[in-house]
Amino acid sequence: MEASESANVRLTVEYDGTAFCGFQFQPAARTVAGDLEAALSQLFEEPVKLSAAGRTDAGVHACGQVVNFTTARTRFPFDRLALALNSALRNDVSVREVAIVDAGFSARFSATERSYVYAIFNRPQASALLARYAAHVWTPIDLDRFADASRALIGKHDFRAFCATLPDNGITVRTIHALTVRQRGHLIRVQITGDGFLHKMVRTIVGTLIECGTGRRDPESMRAILAARDRQTAGPTAVPHGLYLAGVLYRDGYDSYCEPPIFQT
Amino acid sequence: MEASESANVRLTVEYDGTAFCGFQFQPAARTVAGDLEAALSQLFEEPVKLSAAGRTDAGVHACGQVVNFTTARTRFPFDRLALALNSALRNDVSVREVAIVDAGFSARFSATERSYVYAIFNRPQASALLARYAAHVWTPIDLDRFADASRALIGKHDFRAFCATLPDNGITVRTIHALTVRQRGHLIRVQITGDGFLHKMVRTIVGTLIECGTGRRDPESMRAILAARDRQTAGPTAVPHGLYLAGVLYRDGYDSYCEPPIFQT
Repeated sequence: MEASESANVRLTVEYDGTAFCGFQFQPAARTVAGDLEAALSQLFEEPVKLSAAGRTDAGVHACGQVVNFTTARTRFPFDRLALALNSALRNDVSVREVAIVDAGFSARFSATERSYVYAIFNRPQASALLARYAAHVWTPIDLDRFADASRALIGKHDFRAFCATLPDNGITVRTIHALTVRQRGHLIRVQITGDGFLHKMVRTIVGTLIECGTGRRDPESMRAILAARDRQTAGPTAVPHGLYLAGVLYRDGYDSYCEPPIFQT
Repeated sequence: MEASESANVRLTVEYDGTAFCGFQFQPAARTVAGDLEAALSQLFEEPVKLSAAGRTDAGVHACGQVVNFTTARTRFPFDRLALALNSALRNDVSVREVAIVDAGFSARFSATERSYVYAIFNRPQASALLARYAAHVWTPIDLDRFADASRALIGKHDFRAFCATLPDNGITVRTIHALTVRQRGHLIRVQITGDGFLHKMVRTIVGTLIECGTGRRDPESMRAILAARDRQTAGPTAVPHGLYLAGVLYRDGYDSYCEPPIFQT
């Protein structure tokens, strides 16, 4: 058997999105990809470019982001890569898991399902310790209205009304496999799982559902919003700091899912 | 009945200690008392000075801090004070509850019990989303050893060995009513309840217990540390960002206890 010429490396990554201008590399701004690529390029002594499961926007967190890159340095001590990276990275980004995967694996294109969690803190008074990690909504949310409205979104639909910027290929049909809502104390946890999501789709869905929950919008209106295919008919985009890329499921069965810390214990 | 000349106001306060140089007012540094007193003085149009249940150090969080102040403005609309304060304050400090209390109430001197929670994240890889809210310990902690060591501390003891700076009156005897340890996933939650705590006492106790748990120190040594009454015999002071002032119990029955968000759901 010949030694392979390159290694395909998968990383499972967690980050606090507060101080980042999003995931995607930008030359003049701090980004998650920028930090990871800089640390990896130094460790591997060659330029490293990442592919990622989700290009999260500025302020959005991740507990189950997945990235991959290939390197010619196949003799690198990969069992020590996670600790080396975590020493090199600032403490708002961390690597949970490292694996050598098949050459055909792509963090972006091999993904079959993505799961986002949105956290809402629903109480008149804000919470200082949740200020970075949940959206504060002071108006009482009726959970039944919120959940009723959400049901129209499950399944395969054209989500153009919930899309901020159209994708390059113009295709706005996506399938939502599950949308669950639960409340514990003043925290509401919304989980949306689907084959893929358009730009700001989860936050626009949540922003619209919040309007249904607080009584500003009829839960029955969701079907009409889908049918209109017009961003103007949907509600506002919910704030980024309530959102977490929680997990990605792959064809090979790997699932990076990790519950956000405020829902974990 | 005569109208009383002043109102005694109790606030229950939460803060993320990261950006504060501790609770106590300092003229040239950002402190929790400084922020609260500035906001209150503006709202009440008179200088406001606070008394507090716990003078937490720089970096220490609170979910159940209690403060009080008196004001001559007895006709202030107190039912709107929490929202007015939360609008005036930055989002890393928030007021959960406001109450008008008996003239004799002092947040500091009427307290009969204080409860602190310490969060430890015990995994080789750090967690970006817990970086501000739990101490990261990468060496595995044996929970039985940790708990065994803690038992010697319960009850009335001279805690001078666990005290960074002696109190003005020199009295270092305190009573720990309960010390509980539990683990969920990689998070360890330590709760210490007692009549009062010396300067950095909780963090020095936790730092010493971590050494017992990781095998660097014999759990049996705790009694000898207490008996030595010498700070040099105890372990290191655990980092401030794992610590939360979680609740204060008062003679009148009021209990401000609130679980830190990462342990709440």
